[in-house]
Amino acid sequence: MRLALAEARHAFEQDEVPVGAVIVARGQVIARAHNLCERLNDFTAHAEMQAFTAASEFLGGKHLDQCTLYVTLEPCPMCAGAAFWTRIGRIVFGASDAKRGYRTWMNPGQVSLTHPKTTVDRGVLEEECSQLLKDFFAAKRNQR
Amino acid sequence: MRLALAEARHAFEQDEVPVGAVIVARGQVIARAHNLCERLNDFTAHAEMQAFTAASEFLGGKHLDQCTLYVTLEPCPMCAGAAFWTRIGRIVFGASDAKRGYRTWMNPGQVSLTHPKTTVDRGVLEEECSQLLKDFFAAKRNQR
Repeated sequence: MRLALAEARHAFEQDEVPVGAVIVARGQVIARAHNLCERLNDFTAHAEMQAFTAASEFLGGKHLDQCTLYVTLEPCPMCAGAAFWTRIGRIVFGASDAKRGYRTWMNPGQVSLTHPKTTVDRGVLEEECSQLLKDFFAAKRNQR
Repeated sequence: MRLALAEARHAFEQDEVPVGAVIVARGQVIARAHNLCERLNDFTAHAEMQAFTAASEFLGGKHLDQCTLYVTLEPCPMCAGAAFWTRIGRIVFGASDAKRGYRTWMNPGQVSLTHPKTTVDRGVLEEECSQLLKDFFAAKRNQR
């Protein structure tokens, strides 16, 4: 998560919403990314999406069931839906997102947006992950 | 939707799950794409995701609130979540997807995964859109 936080700080420096993501397979970092929505003119360029694409490429199109995603903010439904398709083994996130976090969306069988085999841990370095986002939006408000 | 179906047929010919998408702004096609998961080794390379990225790029990073997405299959939660971020004005889809369609996931306030301002129409050329998928999976089963 320290690496994911470093990625988030890169995003902050580039005036992007500071979210960072890292994917690890068997102890090796195979993808690291940060939010690039502004740079790429693309609302879908979240850190996780890029990390998934990079990790899938690295593994030659295999599922990510042996991998862990570390991400500084709770994934949104888009990223959780992407995680489903990759079948990623584990998700660890820092700050929770009460508004756009994926966890509030459930289907009638109370099935999450993530894959049933994906385990999720949260709150890792939560304070730092959350503070970085707060600092970013506070700075944005002051700019106006 | 005819154009989206043509895109889906391109996907079929390339041994990709046949889903096609087109985005129209003020009567002009600004993005057309088909599923490329196999080609790109990327489980997130759905037709809609690529169409959103292309349309955002075309419009210089503006929201897609003046645009309509035509897609041959009901979007999955990932693509519906992406649609939320783009704020696309309208979604028109062909075949419904009982298993992975986004419509079964709701949050406690019964809020859909799509943006509240997005209107959705479905069932347009449903038969053709659906038949193409059935033909694809039937052919896949016969290959085994």
